[in-house]
Amino acid sequence: MAPQKVIISCAVTGSIHTPSMSPHLPVTAAEVAESALGAAAAGAAIVHLHARNPTDGRPDQSPEAFEPFLRVIKQSSNVVVNLTTGGSPYMTVEERVRPAATWKPEVASLNMGSMNFGLFPMLKRYKSFKHDWEPQMLEGSHDLVFRNSFKDIRYALETLNGTGARYEFECYDTSHLYNLHYFWTEGLVKAPLFIQTCFGLLGGIGAHPDDVMHMKRTADRLFGDNYRWSVLGAGRAQMQVAAMAASMGGHVRVGLEDSLWIGAGRLAETNAARVTQVRKIIEGLGLEIASPDEARDILQLKGGDTVAF
Amino acid sequence: MAPQKVIISCAVTGSIHTPSMSPHLPVTAAEVAESALGAAAAGAAIVHLHARNPTDGRPDQSPEAFEPFLRVIKQSSNVVVNLTTGGSPYMTVEERVRPAATWKPEVASLNMGSMNFGLFPMLKRYKSFKHDWEPQMLEGSHDLVFRNSFKDIRYALETLNGTGARYEFECYDTSHLYNLHYFWTEGLVKAPLFIQTCFGLLGGIGAHPDDVMHMKRTADRLFGDNYRWSVLGAGRAQMQVAAMAASMGGHVRVGLEDSLWIGAGRLAETNAARVTQVRKIIEGLGLEIASPDEARDILQLKGGDTVAF
Amino acid sequence: MAPQKVIISCAVTGSIHTPSMSPHLPVTAAEVAESALGAAAAGAAIVHLHARNPTDGRPDQSPEAFEPFLRVIKQSSNVVVNLTTGGSPYMTVEERVRPAATWKPEVASLNMGSMNFGLFPMLKRYKSFKHDWEPQMLEGSHDLVFRNSFKDIRYALETLNGTGARYEFECYDTSHLYNLHYFWTEGLVKAPLFIQTCFGLLGGIGAHPDDVMHMKRTADRLFGDNYRWSVLGAGRAQMQVAAMAASMGGHVRVGLEDSLWIGAGRLAETNAARVTQVRKIIEGLGLEIASPDEARDILQLKGGDTVAF
Amino acid sequence: MAPQKVIISCAVTGSIHTPSMSPHLPVTAAEVAESALGAAAAGAAIVHLHARNPTDGRPDQSPEAFEPFLRVIKQSSNVVVNLTTGGSPYMTVEERVRPAATWKPEVASLNMGSMNFGLFPMLKRYKSFKHDWEPQMLEGSHDLVFRNSFKDIRYALETLNGTGARYEFECYDTSHLYNLHYFWTEGLVKAPLFIQTCFGLLGGIGAHPDDVMHMKRTADRLFGDNYRWSVLGAGRAQMQVAAMAASMGGHVRVGLEDSLWIGAGRLAETNAARVTQVRKIIEGLGLEIASPDEARDILQLKGGDTVAF
Ligand SMILES: [Zn+2]
Ligand SMILES: [Zn+2]
Ligand SMILES: [Zn+2]
Ligand SMILES: [Zn+2]
Repeated sequence: MAPQKVIISCAVTGSIHTPSMSPHLPVTAAEVAESALGAAAAGAAIVHLHARNPTDGRPDQSPEAFEPFLRVIKQSSNVVVNLTTGGSPYMTVEERVRPAATWKPEVASLNMGSMNFGLFPMLKRYKSFKHDWEPQMLEGSHDLVFRNSFKDIRYALETLNGTGARYEFECYDTSHLYNLHYFWTEGLVKAPLFIQTCFGLLGGIGAHPDDVMHMKRTADRLFGDNYRWSVLGAGRAQMQVAAMAASMGGHVRVGLEDSLWIGAGRLAETNAARVTQVRKIIEGLGLEIASPDEARDILQLKGGDTVAF
Repeated sequence: MAPQKVIISCAVTGSIHTPSMSPHLPVTAAEVAESALGAAAAGAAIVHLHARNPTDGRPDQSPEAFEPFLRVIKQSSNVVVNLTTGGSPYMTVEERVRPAATWKPEVASLNMGSMNFGLFPMLKRYKSFKHDWEPQMLEGSHDLVFRNSFKDIRYALETLNGTGARYEFECYDTSHLYNLHYFWTEGLVKAPLFIQTCFGLLGGIGAHPDDVMHMKRTADRLFGDNYRWSVLGAGRAQMQVAAMAASMGGHVRVGLEDSLWIGAGRLAETNAARVTQVRKIIEGLGLEIASPDEARDILQLKGGDTVAF
Repeated sequence: MAPQKVIISCAVTGSIHTPSMSPHLPVTAAEVAESALGAAAAGAAIVHLHARNPTDGRPDQSPEAFEPFLRVIKQSSNVVVNLTTGGSPYMTVEERVRPAATWKPEVASLNMGSMNFGLFPMLKRYKSFKHDWEPQMLEGSHDLVFRNSFKDIRYALETLNGTGARYEFECYDTSHLYNLHYFWTEGLVKAPLFIQTCFGLLGGIGAHPDDVMHMKRTADRLFGDNYRWSVLGAGRAQMQVAAMAASMGGHVRVGLEDSLWIGAGRLAETNAARVTQVRKIIEGLGLEIASPDEARDILQLKGGDTVAF
Repeated sequence: MAPQKVIISCAVTGSIHTPSMSPHLPVTAAEVAESALGAAAAGAAIVHLHARNPTDGRPDQSPEAFEPFLRVIKQSSNVVVNLTTGGSPYMTVEERVRPAATWKPEVASLNMGSMNFGLFPMLKRYKSFKHDWEPQMLEGSHDLVFRNSFKDIRYALETLNGTGARYEFECYDTSHLYNLHYFWTEGLVKAPLFIQTCFGLLGGIGAHPDDVMHMKRTADRLFGDNYRWSVLGAGRAQMQVAAMAASMGGHVRVGLEDSLWIGAGRLAETNAARVTQVRKIIEGLGLEIASPDEARDILQLKGGDTVAF
């Protein structure tokens, strides 16, 4: 049996990093579109997208904020679009699901449990910020609980299941896998589950190889062949975690949402650069990357022509 | 080197189970005191205590609710008293720390992260309830986030550190260990850390042997010799988890807070019965149980004469 | 589903320990029979048997040496008889399989790989020996390779498969499980495989909990539901390893072959004492021990009336 | 702290593969030298060398067989030379250590335990062989026990310790790590230990990620900071195992001794090609490869000017 091709997801901008941290962080719709298309050209089969206020870079989860870049991306590329329902951990679930409910993408992310979300360690690395909201958001994370109760998750599933979207189930610790298993036994989610195990954020599991193995092993035990495994490593563990997963048959997510860096002290200039780097690892392993259509096949997606944008 | 003696903690009543679930659940102060003393007589070195409203069994985190049984227990036994700061996951942290702040016990529990707390599966097992609050509390857990932000935890530590209490750090998943490590690097907690890894509650890590091993391994990596390991298994995994830990050099927690059962379909009649059962395992392993004073020595507690009750 | 009952195997005398190490080590046929029957009465469902020269206690793998105690045991007990084909690691495979080929027991042990067999550390613990062969045997283990080539194993299987015996596949390291998997893919062994994972002998895997977990996990991966797991811990790890396995759904082997000790510095006086001790752990776990007939059922044995003694 | 540079070892020809399996397998001294130098130019810091009979490719462990390529390599390159003491698993230990005893290289390999060595599965892949010894050697492995008793290992250490060589401790299963630990406690080996954990050969541990993790974890536990970790994956797992190790801070070994293949059905044409491929992975991880002098520094080698060739 030929080994499965490796799906590279690229998380283009997210909501955790702020404009003052890197001049290369996409903020405007034009920047998001251009960076997503660059990532796709470099080999990403999926782009995971957030929107930001074009003026100050603040996360903006209004459906209208997504529209401009969705249209550009769709016009120019076959890449699979994945819309966040995480939004920012400061938002309510109702607010967070609106873009996916409106635009009906092939994939929508879904956070599988409540947790602390400790962004404040980043405060130490930056002396000044362009916008007041940036240090406030980071400082506020001391008291931030990213709320994803069972009811919240059920609300997201019941709102989005009808759109035909598949989910990128974001699991930040073992418990999130067990929570997903609960919804699996309830029949609210369907195979193949696309599970994004997330490593290295303060408040979630770490990025040690033992952590990666434990999440993989637990998912294997709970879901058997009914899931497709992907990983993201926050910060400098990004490539280490990706290499471990790729060597074990997994898929990978990279991009500026998860790490702004391409090496010690060196900012990544584009999302494409991160895709290119992980592609070196994948090809060094003798594996091939999946095209968008191959990703659709692996994840059994509804197709790029069924979205509402 | 002689193997360390095994500390049995007994969690007498907790806040999760409700009076309708078992006639043997201690509710009044007299019942809590009697059951705690019975557990101590059977071999528990530590009793972990919650208070309940004597009329309807609802969790009561007012310091006054603790006073009656604290006095009785202290008068009759040398057992180490551990007061909950978990209270009920529906309470605020300020409410939750008050009993420990008031009574200054040798040990106070402390939850190390936010999480979902899914008690609703218990609804299926019971046809009727004596009190309205019982099904409401269980039903409400669909939307329950047990909130323990970094700020909340810091608040508890800053409130209680001055009392000389040590903590029973309750860790329900890997992330909680990393959170504890954050406070360790901040200098807010001191060795030897008494870490209670908690298994099998929906919303937390499961009770599979892999889960037990991963928590142990992670704690070893993060804290080396600076911690003492204990486990609690919720529900029917209680003895399995305890046996694994005891065979690996750990301490154990049992009691009706964590499991009402002593076998399939058979309710435990007393906390002492659970202590006696785990003691069989420990002694079968050729190990000895720790007396309260030996537990004080192992955990470096301040002493039973320094409490405020 | 009710948890499976736990099979206690008792290894009565073996070939590794020598008469000078313990006055309680069974040597004569009468002693082996009596000790095996005592173990059965205490709860062992299976007795794993070696024979020794009645004069000097040297391992004796002649079929005639087994006959006296086989007859006594069969006459007095329903216990399942398991005959060693390990014999002593100094013997050839042809010599080692003869007792099982002759007496056609329900179970025969089978070592699944070659390895060093470092018994020499025991030399440090004893000042004098009654018989010259004892220190010579221990000293000789510096250069001892316990030979179980693929051809040797195939020879044992081809010799014994016709007797209807099942095997206690003794696996002293991960590679032995992979070797067993090779014979499984060759169709030379049949499910349910009874796998005895063996811990703590110098030359084999250690007795650390990680080692126990890795063997279990590897067997799960290679054999799925097609095997029944048992463990033996050499020396002082015996009960720790047994407790871990029992808490994970496994079966256990105890007895004087594997450990002469019942506690630090205290010799076990009987095999029954070891069985009684492990039974405490099993019952503390809320589990039941398997009777010989229940063991026959679990392992799908041919039946005690089909043996040749 | 900057992450350590990654040492690439290249095992140029070995003794397991035979000339009929690949026209690219180096056989003559000129071929060995050329291939080793190519590997060094591509980034290998260490070359692990065996000699073969130039006529039929049979392993030749006479010191004279090594001389021609040793001289050429030393003249042209600063690469660290590592001489096998494994030779072929059919040879005695006395025969196996002679080249290292004679030429006093900076590194000598050393196998840390006895094991089956199942090369016979390769028989199925080849229809014909150029030399009679090839199928005989493979067929013979059904009964092959690679003998490395405690006494054998002690003999090698006592013979070679005086040369100032460090060892590449080849560990094919968990037990080999424990055996190494025995010699460590005996004071016969010195830190930093260079441990080559070897995966995927029938008779040894497999090449599953769990196997890699277990060997790493065991070495960490037994040796702490006193060792440097390297891996080799036999056959098609070569790059997967290397990627896992590199992502966990380990070093890697590649080359035609361990795998003749560069992809499904495609023979590697040179050792350099394997080095180049693993280098892609390492650089994709954002890591740098070690030069020979950096490898000398990491492993604390005696220096390339102290060898006897
Ligand atoms: Zn996102
Ligand atoms: Zn509690
Ligand atoms: Zn035996
Ligand atoms: Zn070699």
